[in-house]
Amino acid sequence: MSLPFGDDVAGINIGERKCAILKSDMLVDMTDAPRQMTDWQKGRKAVVATASDFASKGVKPIALLTSVGIPRKFSRNQIIEVAKGIEAGAKEYDTHIIGGDIAETSNLIIDCMGFGITRKDRLISRCGANPGDILAVTGHFGEASAGLKILLENIGIPAYLRKRLTRNVLMPRAQLKLGLALAKSMVISSSIDSSDGLAWSLYELSRMSGLGFEVNNLPVSQFTERFARLTNIDIRNLILYGGEEFHLVVTVPPNSWKKALRVSRRVGGRLYRIGRAISGKRIFTTIGGKKARIEPIGWEHFTS
Amino acid sequence: MSLPFGDDVAGINIGERKCAILKSDMLVDMTDAPRQMTDWQKGRKAVVATASDFASKGVKPIALLTSVGIPRKFSRNQIIEVAKGIEAGAKEYDTHIIGGDIAETSNLIIDCMGFGITRKDRLISRCGANPGDILAVTGHFGEASAGLKILLENIGIPAYLRKRLTRNVLMPRAQLKLGLALAKSMVISSSIDSSDGLAWSLYELSRMSGLGFEVNNLPVSQFTERFARLTNIDIRNLILYGGEEFHLVVTVPPNSWKKALRVSRRVGGRLYRIGRAISGKRIFTTIGGKKARIEPIGWEHFTS
Repeated sequence: MSLPFGDDVAGINIGERKCAILKSDMLVDMTDAPRQMTDWQKGRKAVVATASDFASKGVKPIALLTSVGIPRKFSRNQIIEVAKGIEAGAKEYDTHIIGGDIAETSNLIIDCMGFGITRKDRLISRCGANPGDILAVTGHFGEASAGLKILLENIGIPAYLRKRLTRNVLMPRAQLKLGLALAKSMVISSSIDSSDGLAWSLYELSRMSGLGFEVNNLPVSQFTERFARLTNIDIRNLILYGGEEFHLVVTVPPNSWKKALRVSRRVGGRLYRIGRAISGKRIFTTIGGKKARIEPIGWEHFTS
Repeated sequence: MSLPFGDDVAGINIGERKCAILKSDMLVDMTDAPRQMTDWQKGRKAVVATASDFASKGVKPIALLTSVGIPRKFSRNQIIEVAKGIEAGAKEYDTHIIGGDIAETSNLIIDCMGFGITRKDRLISRCGANPGDILAVTGHFGEASAGLKILLENIGIPAYLRKRLTRNVLMPRAQLKLGLALAKSMVISSSIDSSDGLAWSLYELSRMSGLGFEVNNLPVSQFTERFARLTNIDIRNLILYGGEEFHLVVTVPPNSWKKALRVSRRVGGRLYRIGRAISGKRIFTTIGGKKARIEPIGWEHFTS
C-alpha cells in the first residue's frame, strides 16, 4: 500500500512510481440525507462525497462505479431522478460512471466508488505535516452545520438565510479543482477532507502526522454569524464540531504559502490561514488571547 | 472504455496497452442470502461474487474495497463475523481489502468492489465468440439451484443430499484460478460468469457476440439427478434457469480446445463441452435428437 490505512482514500502501487487510488463512500438515505433533499440531490451528493476524498489527496477520479440499492416503493421516476443526480455529479467533476450494481434494499443506498491513478510523489497523505507549517482551510466552516440544523430541527429563520445556509447541505461541493491544483504544484505537506467536522479533521492530521495545532483564526461567514446570533447557538460549535462540510484542511510549508495562494486563486479557489502546526499533540485555539482546547469530537450521522 | 458496457466488469484504458478493471457487486441480506446462511458466510459470499466476475474476464483482483451497511440490531459479534467472512474470502482469492466504508442500514449490505489491471490483449470480453467455437462450462449446473430450492422451500430430502446440494449455496466458489489460467494461455474467445443462470448467460453471450448456440450436452451431477427424481422437479429447469452458480460459460476456438483442457487440468479445474456457437441468434438444445428452444429466462433474486 502506498498510503497508510485510515487515510482519506486507499492507494496501491501499480509500478513505474504510480499508484491506483480507490475510495468508496456509502450514502444511506436514512442517515445521510435530510428529508428535504430530493432524489436527484441524493444521487449527486453520493458523487460529491467521493470526489471530496479525491480532492483531499489531489487525485483526479477518472472513473466511478455506483452500487445503488432501491426500495421497492420507489417509482420509475424516482429511480430516474437518482440516476440523473449521479450523472450530474459525475459530469460536474469531469468523471464517468463506468459500471456498478443495482439491488433491492429497504432504504435508498448509493455506494459510490472512485478510481484514479497518480504519481506517487504527488500523493498528499495525512502524515506529512511538520511543526511550523501553516494550517489552512479552503472555505468558511459553519455554514453547512447551520444548514443541517435548520433542516433537521426545522428552525425558523428569515427565508434568505435559510436558503443560503441549507444550500451547502442540499448542494454540497467538493474542492476538486483546488485539490488537484495544490497537489500538482506540490505546495501541500498534508491534507484531509473535512466531512466529519473541522475538529475531527485536525485530530486526524495530528494523529497521523504526530504533531499538534494552534488555531488563531476561525474565519466565519456573515450568514453563519447571523444564524448564531438569531438562534443563540455557540458559533464555535458550528465551526468546529459540525459535519457535512466538504472543505479541505491542509498544511503548507511557510516557504510555499505564497505559491499556494497564487495557485488557489488561479483555479478560483480560496485558502484561509487558520493557524499553524506545532510540536506536541495538543490542539487548541488562541483566539482573542485566550487559550481553549479543541475537543476530539467528530460529527455523527443523524437518524431521520 | 476497453470493454463494452454491460460486460461482467468495467474496464478503462490506462495507457501502455493496459487497462484497469473495476467491478462492484452488492450483496443484500434480504435478497441474496437465505436465512440459513451465517454472517460469516455472507461476508465471504460478497467477495466470491466479485471474484467470479474477475474470473470470467481472466483478471486477478489485486485489491478490494468493501462498503458495509450494518443494521442497528447487529451485535458486536455479528459485525466481527461479517468482517471475518470478508477477510476469509479475500484470502481465499489471494487478494486484499484495502479500504471501504461503514454505514447504518436496515438490512445487512455488503458492496464489494474489486480492482485489477490487465494487458488489453488478454482481456476476455463477452463479444469474441465465433460460429464453430466450442461452448464449454467449468462445472455441473443445477446443484446450486437445487440447493437454493432446498433452503428457501425447506424441501425434505435425505440429509447427505441436502448437505451436498446446499453447500454450493452457502459456500459458493469462484473459478478464479481457472479463469486466470485460461486467459493467460489465450485459448478463450469469450466468457461470462453464470450467476444469473446458464440460459441467461447464453443469451448474453449471444447478444454481445452476435451469434447463437446449439447445446447438445448438459452435464449433470448424480446429486442433482437424485434431487430431481425425489422431488419431481424438471431437471432442465434446474440446469438452465437456476441462479447462484458461479461457473464460467466460455467459448473456445476448436484448435485451442486441447490446450484449454490441458490448462484447466493443470490448475485442478474442469472444462465440459456442452455445444457449439452457430451463426444466427437461435439458442436451443438437441439432446436425445430432439430440438428444443432455451428460453431467455434469468434467475431472479428472491425475497426472504
